[in-house]
Amino acid sequence: MYTVLLSGGSGKRLWPLSNDLRSKQYIKIFDEAEQGNEQISMVQRVVGQLKDSGIDKNLFICAGNSQLEIIHSQLGDIGVAVEPERRDTFPAVAISCAYALSYCGATEQDCMVILPVDPYTDEGYFKTLGELEGCLCESGADIALMGVVPDCPSTKYGYIVPNENAGRYSSVLEFREKPDEETAKQLISRNAVFNCGVFCFKISLICDILRNMGLKADYDYLYANYEKLPKISFDYQVLEKCDNMIVVPFMGMWKDLGTWNALADEMQRETIGNAIVEQCDNTRVINELDIPIVANGLENIVIAASADGILVTEKTKSENIKNTVSRLDIPPMYEERRWGTLKTVDRGETNLTRHVKMFAGMVSSYHYHEKRNEVWVFLKGTGEMILGNMKMSVSAGMSLTIPQGANHIIKAVTELEFLEVHIGEPNTNDIHRLSFDWDEVEKTTV
Amino acid sequence: MYTVLLSGGSGKRLWPLSNDLRSKQYIKIFDEAEQGNEQISMVQRVVGQLKDSGIDKNLFICAGNSQLEIIHSQLGDIGVAVEPERRDTFPAVAISCAYALSYCGATEQDCMVILPVDPYTDEGYFKTLGELEGCLCESGADIALMGVVPDCPSTKYGYIVPNENAGRYSSVLEFREKPDEETAKQLISRNAVFNCGVFCFKISLICDILRNMGLKADYDYLYANYEKLPKISFDYQVLEKCDNMIVVPFMGMWKDLGTWNALADEMQRETIGNAIVEQCDNTRVINELDIPIVANGLENIVIAASADGILVTEKTKSENIKNTVSRLDIPPMYEERRWGTLKTVDRGETNLTRHVKMFAGMVSSYHYHEKRNEVWVFLKGTGEMILGNMKMSVSAGMSLTIPQGANHIIKAVTELEFLEVHIGEPNTNDIHRLSFDWDEVEKTTV
Repeated sequence: MYTVLLSGGSGKRLWPLSNDLRSKQYIKIFDEAEQGNEQISMVQRVVGQLKDSGIDKNLFICAGNSQLEIIHSQLGDIGVAVEPERRDTFPAVAISCAYALSYCGATEQDCMVILPVDPYTDEGYFKTLGELEGCLCESGADIALMGVVPDCPSTKYGYIVPNENAGRYSSVLEFREKPDEETAKQLISRNAVFNCGVFCFKISLICDILRNMGLKADYDYLYANYEKLPKISFDYQVLEKCDNMIVVPFMGMWKDLGTWNALADEMQRETIGNAIVEQCDNTRVINELDIPIVANGLENIVIAASADGILVTEKTKSENIKNTVSRLDIPPMYEERRWGTLKTVDRGETNLTRHVKMFAGMVSSYHYHEKRNEVWVFLKGTGEMILGNMKMSVSAGMSLTIPQGANHIIKAVTELEFLEVHIGEPNTNDIHRLSFDWDEVEKTTV
Repeated sequence: MYTVLLSGGSGKRLWPLSNDLRSKQYIKIFDEAEQGNEQISMVQRVVGQLKDSGIDKNLFICAGNSQLEIIHSQLGDIGVAVEPERRDTFPAVAISCAYALSYCGATEQDCMVILPVDPYTDEGYFKTLGELEGCLCESGADIALMGVVPDCPSTKYGYIVPNENAGRYSSVLEFREKPDEETAKQLISRNAVFNCGVFCFKISLICDILRNMGLKADYDYLYANYEKLPKISFDYQVLEKCDNMIVVPFMGMWKDLGTWNALADEMQRETIGNAIVEQCDNTRVINELDIPIVANGLENIVIAASADGILVTEKTKSENIKNTVSRLDIPPMYEERRWGTLKTVDRGETNLTRHVKMFAGMVSSYHYHEKRNEVWVFLKGTGEMILGNMKMSVSAGMSLTIPQGANHIIKAVTELEFLEVHIGEPNTNDIHRLSFDWDEVEKTTV
């Protein structure tokens, strides 16, 4: 069985801790006893739970290009089926199947389980997940869905209504979109369960659909032809057209931590980061900034601060912020990359300064900038650098100018920190990457 | 008549917009129609009101050393009687008298009016202020006080109780410290008024006291011997010992804006700076940071953010914050100086980066650092610099290293911005100033 974590798009709902380069699933917010006092993110928590349940053998992630570096930073060496652009969940499932076939040794007869990257749940969920393949084969169904047994008539989720047979699984009678509360109560009386976005199928099911569309289930081909896939959800493209499905219920803790209200409820600590909370009730502070936050006399408030901005919201009204935040037109100020982190610390009309941290041993891309000069000021650690055809050692206290057009690459010998000051047009997209690695570039130096 | 604005000490009560180098009276928070859309500070507002009332002829400020640069930045060329250290209000009044005698051409027979720098009041207050000298002379009293006619039995202020004669002024029967509400009501029934810290006297009154202490009413002498002055308030040292005082009542708007609660009520705008307020009630945001603040669904909240930190407080509970904030051990991150501003933008254990802005034409001190190297990266504008015995022109894009021990001085030709990166021991007090000006230093360059 191949297991795929579907990593959704960027969430503005958890701004300012999520941005285009850091979706909510990467926010480090959970305490994990095994990890000492370190916080871990949703995706780290889920991958840990999959490992604990023994479902990590053929595990990979399907995610957008912009998440690649943070995935490797948080999870190390894990396979990634890359969506070249965002086109909804059916294309994501399709390219995941292609990835399994092209790069993981899967055949069309193998089963695949898809699950979201951000469930907040317990081990029962993963146990049920592990049983889906067996249920699929035993029943002869085309798709096995997992359903969460409702703990209340929620209006936030879609429902799956089963037929009335009552074994380990049931065939699916119908799907219902988010109902009103009255309808939800009726659905529950018919043993309906929440649709939690978990489905298991034979890879051939998707390959057949692709072939009908005139497309090939090959990863490199689909990556290059991604725009030919329809922008449609897996639910509309596949589930609604399938008449041979079963649903396997899971009863246990399961939450959608998609709003600050829900997320703050799961924060064990009152504060994360530099913060003082005084005479407050049911209030949470998450501060990624260096400067302190003082919360005084508050009730039911969430405060979240990052280099991107500061949010202060009443907890139960935190669903609004997505729309408010989309009115802000600011570039991401903090980015996690494969090789380290980037933080914008100062900005002007014609200049921009970033504090760069590189992990020991990491190498940047080989690149140049067309419209700006850069001044680098080394703050900490040691590295090696090639600028033009000159190779040099760098260390704390040194500074150098990188003229526009000059090729450069840097390697962190120890953990390395420097300020990167852009002078000219402050556009972080002005980077021209050259496809040489360190060893190739080194041969050209004097 | 000499008019002295007594500028009190640093307030942590309005943290993070006040710090040791910026007291609350310098926060730019008021709209002023005449100034276009610019905000002005309390001290700018009061000085403007004094000018409008024609009481600005012999006007100066008494303030601590650390406020000198911000005073000149906000008020331009105004006289300052400098307290070399904080020693309460009697020493401040004493050195103000000495300053008037030594540097403003005053004689001991001249009158002086002292007022706090931060009253939030209207023109009637300044009209009454202008009448104090006449009342003092006419009555033959030693001290004329101004009293504010109470609008409620407040327990926050001291009261002045008059004798029962009912002319433009009355002689003073007694002082009462902050009373309970019941006592306040009784005091008001006896025509008592709030003590608002405004007093008028002949300068000789203070000179006599100083002579009795064996001290001279000379500015340079008192500045050098300031520690010989007792740490005592003007009220205890002078008022309580005086039995020939009058009080002149003022009836009108008068407020103490010493807490965020009071201050926020006078803010005409819902937000100052980069902020979005959504579905909020009676909420104010003051943001001096570059990054946006989003306030969502809040009631009765004040949010204030500066480079020093972020405060989120329930309005009526804002009196607490002074104690909470004194638990924070952080150096000021934003400083206003005579020649421009300094903002700390990045900090590490062995490095610190400040964004420096200098006004056109301004010159730094001539100085060196003992324990750090500095790298300067020029972002904007042009300047001239002397480093060691080298003179050079600097402009955007340039960078240079200032080794520890190397003397340097810089002059802004146009408005000039640069990053000052400290590498080594990040201690902003490691600055050794040399008493040479630009012209003297220039002669030594090659």
